[in-house]
Amino acid sequence: MDEAAKKEALRLFTYGLYAITTGDEQQRNAFTANWVSQVSFDPPLVVLSIENDSVSLPIIRRTGLFAVNVYASDQRDLAGLLGKSLDKHPDKVAGLVFSTGETGCPVLSEGLAYVECRVRDELLAGDSTLLLAQVEGATVLRRAEPLTMLAAGFKHAG
Amino acid sequence: MDEAAKKEALRLFTYGLYAITTGDEQQRNAFTANWVSQVSFDPPLVVLSIENDSVSLPIIRRTGLFAVNVYASDQRDLAGLLGKSLDKHPDKVAGLVFSTGETGCPVLSEGLAYVECRVRDELLAGDSTLLLAQVEGATVLRRAEPLTMLAAGFKHAG
Repeated sequence: MDEAAKKEALRLFTYGLYAITTGDEQQRNAFTANWVSQVSFDPPLVVLSIENDSVSLPIIRRTGLFAVNVYASDQRDLAGLLGKSLDKHPDKVAGLVFSTGETGCPVLSEGLAYVECRVRDELLAGDSTLLLAQVEGATVLRRAEPLTMLAAGFKHAG
Repeated sequence: MDEAAKKEALRLFTYGLYAITTGDEQQRNAFTANWVSQVSFDPPLVVLSIENDSVSLPIIRRTGLFAVNVYASDQRDLAGLLGKSLDKHPDKVAGLVFSTGETGCPVLSEGLAYVECRVRDELLAGDSTLLLAQVEGATVLRRAEPLTMLAAGFKHAG
């Protein structure tokens, strides 16, 4: 396989940008993700690919919940900030205002919309883990364009 | 859960558009998909969500291979055509020119690029099945903008 072609071809895939929120009484976190997709209509399921060594993975496993918060096109800076690791940037969520969604999951009130998801299954996927989760809540906050990887100029594929 | 909010929020997710090709001596098919994402860097893995009753699912299981062909922004008509079911439109792939990729998988030579994937695992996901597959080949055909769901005006989420 041509490694340069692999990288270039995979970077032609199109992605959105999302803040994944999770947490309980002990710890809350929010991180930027792009490997997110709906995968079923009935029931409504989404999949999130999360790095195996993510600090959020054990929180999601403990609570069984995460929310996918859709960034608006004017939230590129927030997406960049929340793309940094909590370990290296422990204050990254200090300025965030979390709300509580209908499932009890922490959500952000400053994005376009959020969907709250309960984990139904998981599958090891190389350096990451696929979390298959059912949509149990959804809120639209405002109407604007969603932020995309392409518009943000971020690279997380290849 | 507010069903209208669920639909609206999920439609804010951003997707690309891809022709998934698969086949062997008996049968070849190509269909349009958007629930596709890379999910791991090492090894390079992608996930494809495919309807459980898709005619292509047994072919992919038999051969263990599919290719993700990235549509160019000028291929909206082809994406629409290949979005129709093979059962109802048996001639839909009649005009397609298939090539054979480095893995032996049928690929299209008229898109932007294609990645050839070998299925490593699968997971039932409601009305669909997640195929977790390793990238074993990649070819970039030309340099142009990829087609997105938003640009095509298609809806397949909610």
